[in-house]
Amino acid sequence: MHFTVLQQDITTAARTGRLALPHGTVETPVFMPVGTQASVKALDSADLYRTGAEIILGNTYHLYLRPGTEVLETFSGIHRFMRWDRPVLTDSGGFQIFSLSSLNKVSEDGVLFQSSLDGSRHFFSPEKAIEVQRSIGADIIMCLDECTEYPADYDRAAASQALTERWARRCKAQWERQDTEAQSLFAIVQGSVYESLRRESAQAMAALDLPGYAIGGVSVGESKEEMERAVEWSTALLPRDKPRYLMGVGAPEDLLKAIFHGVDMFDCVMPTRNARHGRLFTRHGPINIKNARFARDPGPIDDGCPCPACGTYSRAYLHHLFRARELSVLRLNTLHNLSFMIQLTAQVRQAIGSGNYAAFMKDFLQTYQPGREA
Amino acid sequence: MHFTVLQQDITTAARTGRLALPHGTVETPVFMPVGTQASVKALDSADLYRTGAEIILGNTYHLYLRPGTEVLETFSGIHRFMRWDRPVLTDSGGFQIFSLSSLNKVSEDGVLFQSSLDGSRHFFSPEKAIEVQRSIGADIIMCLDECTEYPADYDRAAASQALTERWARRCKAQWERQDTEAQSLFAIVQGSVYESLRRESAQAMAALDLPGYAIGGVSVGESKEEMERAVEWSTALLPRDKPRYLMGVGAPEDLLKAIFHGVDMFDCVMPTRNARHGRLFTRHGPINIKNARFARDPGPIDDGCPCPACGTYSRAYLHHLFRARELSVLRLNTLHNLSFMIQLTAQVRQAIGSGNYAAFMKDFLQTYQPGREA
Repeated sequence: MHFTVLQQDITTAARTGRLALPHGTVETPVFMPVGTQASVKALDSADLYRTGAEIILGNTYHLYLRPGTEVLETFSGIHRFMRWDRPVLTDSGGFQIFSLSSLNKVSEDGVLFQSSLDGSRHFFSPEKAIEVQRSIGADIIMCLDECTEYPADYDRAAASQALTERWARRCKAQWERQDTEAQSLFAIVQGSVYESLRRESAQAMAALDLPGYAIGGVSVGESKEEMERAVEWSTALLPRDKPRYLMGVGAPEDLLKAIFHGVDMFDCVMPTRNARHGRLFTRHGPINIKNARFARDPGPIDDGCPCPACGTYSRAYLHHLFRARELSVLRLNTLHNLSFMIQLTAQVRQAIGSGNYAAFMKDFLQTYQPGREA
Repeated sequence: MHFTVLQQDITTAARTGRLALPHGTVETPVFMPVGTQASVKALDSADLYRTGAEIILGNTYHLYLRPGTEVLETFSGIHRFMRWDRPVLTDSGGFQIFSLSSLNKVSEDGVLFQSSLDGSRHFFSPEKAIEVQRSIGADIIMCLDECTEYPADYDRAAASQALTERWARRCKAQWERQDTEAQSLFAIVQGSVYESLRRESAQAMAALDLPGYAIGGVSVGESKEEMERAVEWSTALLPRDKPRYLMGVGAPEDLLKAIFHGVDMFDCVMPTRNARHGRLFTRHGPINIKNARFARDPGPIDDGCPCPACGTYSRAYLHHLFRARELSVLRLNTLHNLSFMIQLTAQVRQAIGSGNYAAFMKDFLQTYQPGREA
């Protein structure tokens, strides 16, 4: 992996970059659609290319349970299995183990958990998480972390952060036994909402000198202000020449604020999940296509949007399909919301390139009403 | 509308033809995908073009209830509403009134029914059925018929057939008040499983001298043999220079037998419904993609199939998506099953053109096992 910062904004920490990976080059800041089970919900890989996606995320927890590493290895990994030849990033499974498993028991050695599919028991050590991700074959893989719950008091957050740090060292050692060119390892900064812990975690992870860094333990229930501060504290101490990935974020407004603080990569299920509930992004804020006011509206979801849904269909038709519970609308809505996020990051890169990111962000946030038809 | 018989087979009643309609030309025999609510389930119109579909069917009952004729008229009809610029055929609503409505009360004047959506009451006279279809704007429209239930004794079937005949005369009169070039009216032959009634109905309808004829009241519970005989009796007395449409059929094997007896047009929800249940057509018979034997199968659904699913994805991947309940597989399966039916009719036309339809049908039926993994 090779990461190049192309342009550093002067008045903000925003920057553009280029990430060269085994399956292709990614321009940053980038939004990664979430393909949990080797599929971005409602889309196939041909659709994903239509959205302009340059890299997608897969969930190690889900892929490990189904189809399992043996099937993935039969296909030499996720790329050939799902027929997506651009880069993939996998998380470590940590977040899902803590949020989806009916049982999870953390020890120094790793985490014992029960499958959400059939109740079977499994154990992920830091080494095992790297091994599973090797079978999946993503371009970027993540260290196993303990995603600290919210709220967590200082002592609990400190202990959790320290465990994540020790696990990161073991992940690095395991990764170094494998092909470090084929897969690049990122460590995850934790530390909850505490400045000293976020700084401590960022410094400790930076000292590991890995290809990239993620900021975890956000979007877990804390306020928007707490999230923004956690991001700011973390990015301030992460190396400038390495990519920074904010996990599980986010909404257009959150993405712009994190880019302001120097974040390069994002993933979030919100655009795809909202699409399936009829909530569609426009540059004035989200609309809900179920709303009766769209029943005869001949216009597209969002004027000027280049996505296949806006290029072909009216709001009236999408409204009808949604009311009639036709499956096709879930795909069309998803194509739109992902295209919107991907277009937004392209506009962000252009604004940073033109040296006016702060003005761009201000303008966008003035026009965009996050609560509209929420 | 202009219909030309291109080639008449010598040893069977099979023929190829060309149907010139306001929205384009259709080669017959043709399979029409069912787009009940202005949408073929799981597909958008761009997908429909990918299957090679030349004409689709819309259901008047559903379209009348939702989105309703006012919305459709805002868009000057179904073509512009759903962005499908090839021909459309609408049924009259009769079949759905009898099969879906919780209440229906037939009188000489028409049928009173209750909406399956909200319980509201509506009345369809023959004239109203034509009016509603004018608002929908399909290239081919159907007379309101009473779809005789199965089993029906001779007297009941005779009375029902006679009512359908009287309604057809009223439909014709209403249609002649409108633009008969923009929309072509077909009458529907009824008569249940009784030879004399089928013949009587076919002759009476033929005497109306309409642009085309449908065979109704089949695929309602009767045996395959009863269906084949009803088709044979009906086609024998329908004019040779008019298209013949067998409503609600069907399975590949039924389609081939009906073509043998001179049928030109077909529609059926089975290929799309089966697709959503994982039942996929192959030239050896249907397979069920849920089956564990496909978990690592790297091959396509059906060798040589030109559809987007077979061109890109393995059986193993589709199996995984189906097990994981990913929405995208419903679309990929549907693309395959419709492509299969449309390819099959193309092969049929080629066989008739080469003068060896009987041999083609025999070969196909020997290889194709309808009950495989049913």
